[in-house]
Amino acid sequence: MAQLSASSTSSVLPEIPASNIETRVPAGSVGFVTPQLIAFNDPLPLSSGQVLPSYELAVETYGVLNPARTNAVLICHALNASHHVAGMACGNPKDVGWWDNMVGPGKAVDTDRFFVIGVNNIGSCFGSTGPASLRPDTGKPWGAAFPVLTIEDWVLAQVRLADHFGIEKFAAVMGGSLGGMQALSWAITCPERVAHCIVIASTPRLSAQNIGFNEVARRSIISDPDFHGGDYLAHETLPKGGLSVARMLAHITYLSDDDMAERFGRTQRAPAEGGEFHYGYGVEFEVESYLRHQGEKFSGYFDANTYLLITRALDYFDPARNFGGDLARALAGVKADFLLVSFTTDWRFPPARSREIVRALLKNNRPVAYAEIDAPHGHDAFLLEDPRYHAVVQGYYDRIAHKLDLAPRRMSHGVSA
Amino acid sequence: MAQLSASSTSSVLPEIPASNIETRVPAGSVGFVTPQLIAFNDPLPLSSGQVLPSYELAVETYGVLNPARTNAVLICHALNASHHVAGMACGNPKDVGWWDNMVGPGKAVDTDRFFVIGVNNIGSCFGSTGPASLRPDTGKPWGAAFPVLTIEDWVLAQVRLADHFGIEKFAAVMGGSLGGMQALSWAITCPERVAHCIVIASTPRLSAQNIGFNEVARRSIISDPDFHGGDYLAHETLPKGGLSVARMLAHITYLSDDDMAERFGRTQRAPAEGGEFHYGYGVEFEVESYLRHQGEKFSGYFDANTYLLITRALDYFDPARNFGGDLARALAGVKADFLLVSFTTDWRFPPARSREIVRALLKNNRPVAYAEIDAPHGHDAFLLEDPRYHAVVQGYYDRIAHKLDLAPRRMSHGVSA
Repeated sequence: MAQLSASSTSSVLPEIPASNIETRVPAGSVGFVTPQLIAFNDPLPLSSGQVLPSYELAVETYGVLNPARTNAVLICHALNASHHVAGMACGNPKDVGWWDNMVGPGKAVDTDRFFVIGVNNIGSCFGSTGPASLRPDTGKPWGAAFPVLTIEDWVLAQVRLADHFGIEKFAAVMGGSLGGMQALSWAITCPERVAHCIVIASTPRLSAQNIGFNEVARRSIISDPDFHGGDYLAHETLPKGGLSVARMLAHITYLSDDDMAERFGRTQRAPAEGGEFHYGYGVEFEVESYLRHQGEKFSGYFDANTYLLITRALDYFDPARNFGGDLARALAGVKADFLLVSFTTDWRFPPARSREIVRALLKNNRPVAYAEIDAPHGHDAFLLEDPRYHAVVQGYYDRIAHKLDLAPRRMSHGVSA
Repeated sequence: MAQLSASSTSSVLPEIPASNIETRVPAGSVGFVTPQLIAFNDPLPLSSGQVLPSYELAVETYGVLNPARTNAVLICHALNASHHVAGMACGNPKDVGWWDNMVGPGKAVDTDRFFVIGVNNIGSCFGSTGPASLRPDTGKPWGAAFPVLTIEDWVLAQVRLADHFGIEKFAAVMGGSLGGMQALSWAITCPERVAHCIVIASTPRLSAQNIGFNEVARRSIISDPDFHGGDYLAHETLPKGGLSVARMLAHITYLSDDDMAERFGRTQRAPAEGGEFHYGYGVEFEVESYLRHQGEKFSGYFDANTYLLITRALDYFDPARNFGGDLARALAGVKADFLLVSFTTDWRFPPARSREIVRALLKNNRPVAYAEIDAPHGHDAFLLEDPRYHAVVQGYYDRIAHKLDLAPRRMSHGVSA
């Protein structure tokens, strides 16, 4: 393992009002959590040939690392998520982790047995070093100068995080969507350090259609005059309009056609007199109101440069690229056991993409479990609580725990098994 | 039939260079065509309650109206098309009509037998009165003040066109996509005037997903600072950025996932040295280049207000709306025979939507033929030359010609039957 200069520092927290401290912790929750910022001061060489002189990672951990350090699970996040995977943010009980239904005591990823790490990718905007961070050399935001990253770069940055925790091998690396691609990349890049790889609602590469949607989103951001070539912070503006349109578009691709029909149909938001139309270009249908709200909310907290960076990392990911397009050859060196999960109505990364990974693994005689969940919610299904889906993941973790000789699952949580 | 004040005037044409006149007319082409502008000076009451004081329609016709005036076919266009359905624009042989593969002597819609009318919808930007036209009262462009239109308004405007030509009943009203919705609307609104209704790659109403994509496109246009609330012409600007993004997005929905994979895959446009990536946000993949080109081309000739107007007309169309959502009841009064055609890979208006119309017609015991064409090209398939698709349409027109006692098809065109 490389020698690293890493230091762990708690991030500064706001004062916690007494009323929040008394907030009840729901059964199965890891409770209140505090992120830590971990600084890595060795330069990080990137796929692009550029070098990131130093970086910080925002991290949350749940559960306890066992003395043998064999029970660690790394959770990789998707486009707009972060290190805040489970529990409630200290000081803000409404800020619940994005995979809280999956990770916690007694849950599918059982924090009574596993030490779970949530980490924000570099280039993101939730605490780890990214385009909105200050450059060490200038003291000003990176902006457009922040390097383009790849999923492989994220893995490399996080290898140092594993070293920091003294984790030689993860019991599992797991993620959904982009996070699943990253988990796959971990298994390819660091075969010795991943015992199990769990890839959910994911793909071995983006299709032309996927790239097309990403490009429309990027064009929307870049052509916003408030974007200023990526240096909007220096101009004290934000390209909110473009970012909002990008998010609205992405949101449609996360839902299934049926799910949208079920949720919104053609329901009017506030019909004119007599149930009539307004005959204008304001909000007329519920679905418009919903998408606009999603767009506005997102553009209020997400960084536009990060959006460009992450969509580009998605575009570039293609482990088979250096093997003449042969995914089986790209996976020839992996040593992890695999679980793949897909969802029938996911048209962003449909089941056929997961099956491609399954076939490539089987060609290499890797042990692989695969579940195709019949779920109506499209790509977003991987974030939702579906008993069959969670049972599959829980069953797989029980197997991992059994193999690693961890203590049996506690049965007193009141959380359905 | 209502008395109408209509006058037919040929539009002003550019000088035709001699070299163009000598251009060979391909077999099956209607040859060089000249649009006419027809003015209607009676006010047009609209669905919104507003009144359009007068309007002009840009029209092309092909073939000859028979003395009994029974052989007329009206072609309704989709979002970005026009009255220029077939043949070559006079003076510009490269400007071929959008459905030239379908309409011409010896083609599926045989102009040796049928008198075919192509008409630009009001609100569009290719010659008929629209948001970019000058207001009669101010002499300035309508801009944002142009009324929101519905498909029913288009039909009403075109009823007067039928009257102008002295056509009591169309042999067929036909269209694809939005044009198919308009053909359906004709059959509902004017049951006595439509003998056959041909609805291709269409739907009885937009889904929430369809409306969602339209709304993203509109937001992109409206949030372009050059939009100026719709009065960009008065500001001597054009919201090209927003319109371009809208078009890029729409274009993705016109193609199938498979078709995009086939056409572009993950091919790089101009790889960096050693086949590497450029690690930037410029054009990297072919699909990006293609979409950008489509967006830029479109934003150079299409009017942004027209885009808003037509997408809204699409959103609003829902003939079942006033019948408690019961499409069969909405179609109870139609008297036309129907042909419906859908394409297997069309995910914008999938076959299930056409089948819904077929079922509603069958409930009313209307004669209906239905073909589901196994085609790889998604929604755009309705514009492409597919032998099975064209054979279905041609067979249907043969039946129409037989019923109407028109002369038999000439066999000497050298166009495959």
